[in-house]
Amino acid sequence: MIPTPVHATADPLPSWNNGEVKQSIIEFVSRVTTENSPDFVPVADRIATFDNDGTLWAEQPVVQGMFVLGKLQAMAAADRTLTERQPFQAALEGDVEYFKQAGEAAIMELLTATHTNMTQEQFQQEVQQFFATGIHPTLNVPYTKVTYKPMIELLEYLRDNQFQTWICSGGGIDFMRVVSQSLYGIPPEQVIGSSGKEEFIQQDGKYVIWRLPEIARINDHAGKPIGIDLHIGKRPVFAAGNERTGGDIAMLTYSQGRSGASFQLLINHDDAQREFAYQEPDNASLNAAEANGWQVVSIKNDWKTVFFQ
Amino acid sequence: MIPTPVHATADPLPSWNNGEVKQSIIEFVSRVTTENSPDFVPVADRIATFDNDGTLWAEQPVVQGMFVLGKLQAMAAADRTLTERQPFQAALEGDVEYFKQAGEAAIMELLTATHTNMTQEQFQQEVQQFFATGIHPTLNVPYTKVTYKPMIELLEYLRDNQFQTWICSGGGIDFMRVVSQSLYGIPPEQVIGSSGKEEFIQQDGKYVIWRLPEIARINDHAGKPIGIDLHIGKRPVFAAGNERTGGDIAMLTYSQGRSGASFQLLINHDDAQREFAYQEPDNASLNAAEANGWQVVSIKNDWKTVFFQ
Repeated sequence: MIPTPVHATADPLPSWNNGEVKQSIIEFVSRVTTENSPDFVPVADRIATFDNDGTLWAEQPVVQGMFVLGKLQAMAAADRTLTERQPFQAALEGDVEYFKQAGEAAIMELLTATHTNMTQEQFQQEVQQFFATGIHPTLNVPYTKVTYKPMIELLEYLRDNQFQTWICSGGGIDFMRVVSQSLYGIPPEQVIGSSGKEEFIQQDGKYVIWRLPEIARINDHAGKPIGIDLHIGKRPVFAAGNERTGGDIAMLTYSQGRSGASFQLLINHDDAQREFAYQEPDNASLNAAEANGWQVVSIKNDWKTVFFQ
Repeated sequence: MIPTPVHATADPLPSWNNGEVKQSIIEFVSRVTTENSPDFVPVADRIATFDNDGTLWAEQPVVQGMFVLGKLQAMAAADRTLTERQPFQAALEGDVEYFKQAGEAAIMELLTATHTNMTQEQFQQEVQQFFATGIHPTLNVPYTKVTYKPMIELLEYLRDNQFQTWICSGGGIDFMRVVSQSLYGIPPEQVIGSSGKEEFIQQDGKYVIWRLPEIARINDHAGKPIGIDLHIGKRPVFAAGNERTGGDIAMLTYSQGRSGASFQLLINHDDAQREFAYQEPDNASLNAAEANGWQVVSIKNDWKTVFFQ
């Protein structure tokens, strides 16, 4: 009879298929957390940063975009003239071509109309309401059910090994914070995102944070390392993003530039069956992964289960 | 013989004299951490924010100001023309009147010359060097020895009760971060401060954070609640500042405006013997404390020991 080891370690990533990506993650975590290993990283430096859309949850469509659309629909129901005014008409009709032409300014106008000129508390209540009732248009489940099970296991695995897990996303910081703890176990103070200007004002005898109609910082592309420096002040040891717009290349590059061991993960959306399949026109993220030796997750091959439901 | 209780609780604030301030701190912490107490605050919400200059360490003169002066002296030694150019000449000669006249723009020019146009890593090395060698001009000890012992006890006491302790200062975020862990046990990611614009650029084949000569955010006065909202996303349960410029009134007001229990502490510098004695010309902070029921620390009466040496 072969004795069973008493301390047999349970699989920390049960939703990941065995393969190079899973093995390399486990090998890396073990290497940087083993004292006396040449690659040992002290607990204080175990920083892991994750993109959100397409990395921790599905981004077809972008969840915050659906929040914007929901608000515009409610606004249009109260004021029908909105359906005849751009850029609102285009947004309400899903006219993607209009936005390709009109560019960033049109998007900003939508964000201003839906995200600003209210108190922080008021905004967070609206976001809470959205998550309590919103349903994903094609997956047909609440938005709280479009998170990726393998990535939530990865977050927990890293935390079990005394990593701090952070979100670093192009999404709005105050939007994600409302659900980061309940969906990912990530507290609001470990969320980095795009932010607007704010003012501290007195309103009805109480001092509040007022959301001004002006962008303070876009936390995407080269904005991600800047956001990490602002909120954490250290290069991440572990960084994970996904391919779609090239938005995570700078964050992964920044992580890799630290002195000492580091790990970079890039998710490739190649599973039309269970999730969505899409690619960058210029393939920039996959090319960068290839050139720099980043691990690429094939959702189709590397993930046993996709969604956390 | 009276039996000694086995679990006699040691005094958590031994450098504080017994009195109203010390008692009210201990009473508050016990109240918000006692389950079933009507004022119980869950661990996730136990946020404490501390101003730095004049609250955690001495600010006569402001430590970061001495870093600026040291750099200007080194620059002037390499280029004597600096001693004849304003605002450098005034800074090098300690001409306070000049800066009263020239205002904020002159200060910004000094900050630009000493804090920017270098990489983040380079800046942090300079700050490390400053703390390794700098000596306080009148207290005659290294700057690492001008921290207040009672406040360090308070930070530890709050952390023992599962509070997160944060710095929220008008000082530079990247300046304080270099020593926040070693001086206060506060990790760099829990420091909020003023910050400059940054760029993510390639330099000598490596990607670095480059410090641009432009202010991004001043974390003082009404900027403090905004900074707390940006980095934490919650109103603090406990907030501590000091009187000198009115710079902490907004932070304490913001803390007091949370729904649920909160505590505000204001340090009054009234001890010329052991530290420094100074007041605000308009008395705004002490007046706000009086009007809002904030606890005021008299260094003279409330602190048994001042410095942590």
